[in-house]
Amino acid sequence: MTLEVALVLVGDELLGGTRQDANGPWLANRLTRAGARVTSWTLAGDGVAEAARAVGVAAEYADVVIVSGGLGPTDDDGTRAALAVAGGVELVEDDEALDLVRAAQRARGSELDARRRLEARLPRGATCLANPEGTAPGIAMRLGRSTLFALPGVPREMQAMFDTAVLPRLGDLGDLDPASTASLRTSGLREPDIQDALAGLDGGGVALGLYPHQGEQEIRFTARGEGAEERVEAAAAEARRRLGAAVYGNVPIEEAVVGALKARGLVGTTAESLTGGLVARMLTEVPGASDVFRGGWVVYSDAWKAARLGVPERLLAERGAVSKEVARAMAEGALERAEADLAVSLTGIAGPGGGAAPDGTLIPQGTFYVGFARAGVRTRVEHHRAPHSRTIVRRRAAVRALDVLRRALDGNG
Amino acid sequence: MTLEVALVLVGDELLGGTRQDANGPWLANRLTRAGARVTSWTLAGDGVAEAARAVGVAAEYADVVIVSGGLGPTDDDGTRAALAVAGGVELVEDDEALDLVRAAQRARGSELDARRRLEARLPRGATCLANPEGTAPGIAMRLGRSTLFALPGVPREMQAMFDTAVLPRLGDLGDLDPASTASLRTSGLREPDIQDALAGLDGGGVALGLYPHQGEQEIRFTARGEGAEERVEAAAAEARRRLGAAVYGNVPIEEAVVGALKARGLVGTTAESLTGGLVARMLTEVPGASDVFRGGWVVYSDAWKAARLGVPERLLAERGAVSKEVARAMAEGALERAEADLAVSLTGIAGPGGGAAPDGTLIPQGTFYVGFARAGVRTRVEHHRAPHSRTIVRRRAAVRALDVLRRALDGNG
Repeated sequence: MTLEVALVLVGDELLGGTRQDANGPWLANRLTRAGARVTSWTLAGDGVAEAARAVGVAAEYADVVIVSGGLGPTDDDGTRAALAVAGGVELVEDDEALDLVRAAQRARGSELDARRRLEARLPRGATCLANPEGTAPGIAMRLGRSTLFALPGVPREMQAMFDTAVLPRLGDLGDLDPASTASLRTSGLREPDIQDALAGLDGGGVALGLYPHQGEQEIRFTARGEGAEERVEAAAAEARRRLGAAVYGNVPIEEAVVGALKARGLVGTTAESLTGGLVARMLTEVPGASDVFRGGWVVYSDAWKAARLGVPERLLAERGAVSKEVARAMAEGALERAEADLAVSLTGIAGPGGGAAPDGTLIPQGTFYVGFARAGVRTRVEHHRAPHSRTIVRRRAAVRALDVLRRALDGNG
Repeated sequence: MTLEVALVLVGDELLGGTRQDANGPWLANRLTRAGARVTSWTLAGDGVAEAARAVGVAAEYADVVIVSGGLGPTDDDGTRAALAVAGGVELVEDDEALDLVRAAQRARGSELDARRRLEARLPRGATCLANPEGTAPGIAMRLGRSTLFALPGVPREMQAMFDTAVLPRLGDLGDLDPASTASLRTSGLREPDIQDALAGLDGGGVALGLYPHQGEQEIRFTARGEGAEERVEAAAAEARRRLGAAVYGNVPIEEAVVGALKARGLVGTTAESLTGGLVARMLTEVPGASDVFRGGWVVYSDAWKAARLGVPERLLAERGAVSKEVARAMAEGALERAEADLAVSLTGIAGPGGGAAPDGTLIPQGTFYVGFARAGVRTRVEHHRAPHSRTIVRRRAAVRALDVLRRALDGNG
């Protein structure tokens, strides 16, 4: 039986839905990769009774219970008391924990006060876990049939303590069955089309999952047991064969583009209307982007398109800014003015609401054009429509523009 | 006693930590605003036994249990069976549910097949809830001392069913105690400084929460009961008085800037190195930004700073791109070239790793300069350091630049 782990995340702020919990996903991901099975994940309020109940329930069925949060020195921090209640024992000051708290305070130039000293109190019979990144020690104890670990709620402290004090002990507490995984990304394909293309690939001991990343789709292959790595590799290779140019390695598309530009010693530039700088921002998010991206334009108004990129005013008046012709002129104007090998342009309507062409035709929200210019090659323009909200239209359009670059660099453009 | 609600979110994909659950936060937020108290929130796997256990535990203490997910027609969808197990009853086909499923399929141009027909099976004694946005009906039933509602997992369907079939019934199931809330945002203050400044404001029946939003801090005031609204308003007004120009209304800073520019009929422009288009992207994320932002430059290399904005090459060679002088020249060059009233510039080192000035001095990672130029006013440059990772440095710097604009527009710059 694979080791079963239950997570209990403590904190009133998590329950109101105003703060997204980050510790749960991090722990679940780490545990799953290590080969444990996360069977439930409970958010509980700060109240001692609530946390005690959540911990008690988890300890009835899970091999390991991991609690996060509520170990600090303030009145909100009720996890120590909750563990004592759940275990039916009292809280006692622990010498080793006291030494840890005192040393951590000293390292911060503070003396131990009465409040901080509370952090050294553990349920009787529990042992403490050192906190490499903060003051409050963690707690390890038996509860029912489970082994329980209580970790701080501050992500940095929680992560360090998990990696040093919990992860190495999991193998002794039950069977771990680590998964082999492989991932690919695609852009520009709809989920049902990907599913159709990959039909039959899940099965034979390989599970296939699709995870959307705002305009990109991650395809993840997972297998366990004998020969898992080979099975996963074979499935991923077959998926690459079937999806062809639509698929790339498991990195965000902006990293794929920066990598491909570097590999070919080329420089790209951007001319953005619709996306207002998003494509440039994505490219420059990648460390080392300065080798392949020197700058770009945000040309939000007609006047800027004309003044910065030389888009003919006649074209803007006759065709309108959201047109194939203007997208082409933007890309060509950018390529001419930048010291660059490739240029992409974006113009469109993010909304809310649609727009009108100079001839009065309605242009629906989400309409956009991607221009792509390259010296010595005929400029291409793609027309798309993403019937979504403003933010999503912009994000999808930026990913489309990056995908045009990526495919051109891969020789499939 | 305020109505207590437990959430149970069903789906294997939620447990591995690879997909963030969006239904929990939405439900918790909605319920909290309606005046219910969300006491726990459990993620459970698809397995019937697991979901049944989670539901059974929740029904032991909560007044209302809301289950989301697992109502579809595939083999993964085990919620119907889990509810039957938890209630100790069998699943039976429900006439009303069958009518709903048949009508929904017909509206999609499909006939009812055997698989879809499974969606009409309910635990004996339960009633169905119409699905305004999809096929699978929801379920309402008594379980232990609780009233249980099972909703679909697709957010659009879940939200519509919650609003039409669950929310109106909550008042009959227990006491609701809706909260009055007010929010302010600040930027550029550290959390401990905000806490010091607001000391004593929480208490007197007003709870105060601080929620970080990547470089901005939201300060939220919450109160319940008699006179809650007045208490919340008084606390927010006092916070405004104490924090002065550091505080603005409860909108993201880019919205505050676009709003202030509109109110004053002014146009801004951007010259970005460090942030690579992030400031322009943030401004243009706001609908209607085209009234106050016509375009901007991403000048990532020295050559672009010189060619586009006229930054003297001598300055770049002598002072280096990451310098007060270059930040000033960028802002002034942008203002001169754009048809704009205000210009902000950003130059710095996002990392990974630091850089070196022309004289060999080390410039630590996270160092950045914000320039601010305005016709007829002496250009100002702020020097900052954000000792964080690349993405966070860039985000913090963008928020600082927007805050410089905001303060200037508020007359406190």
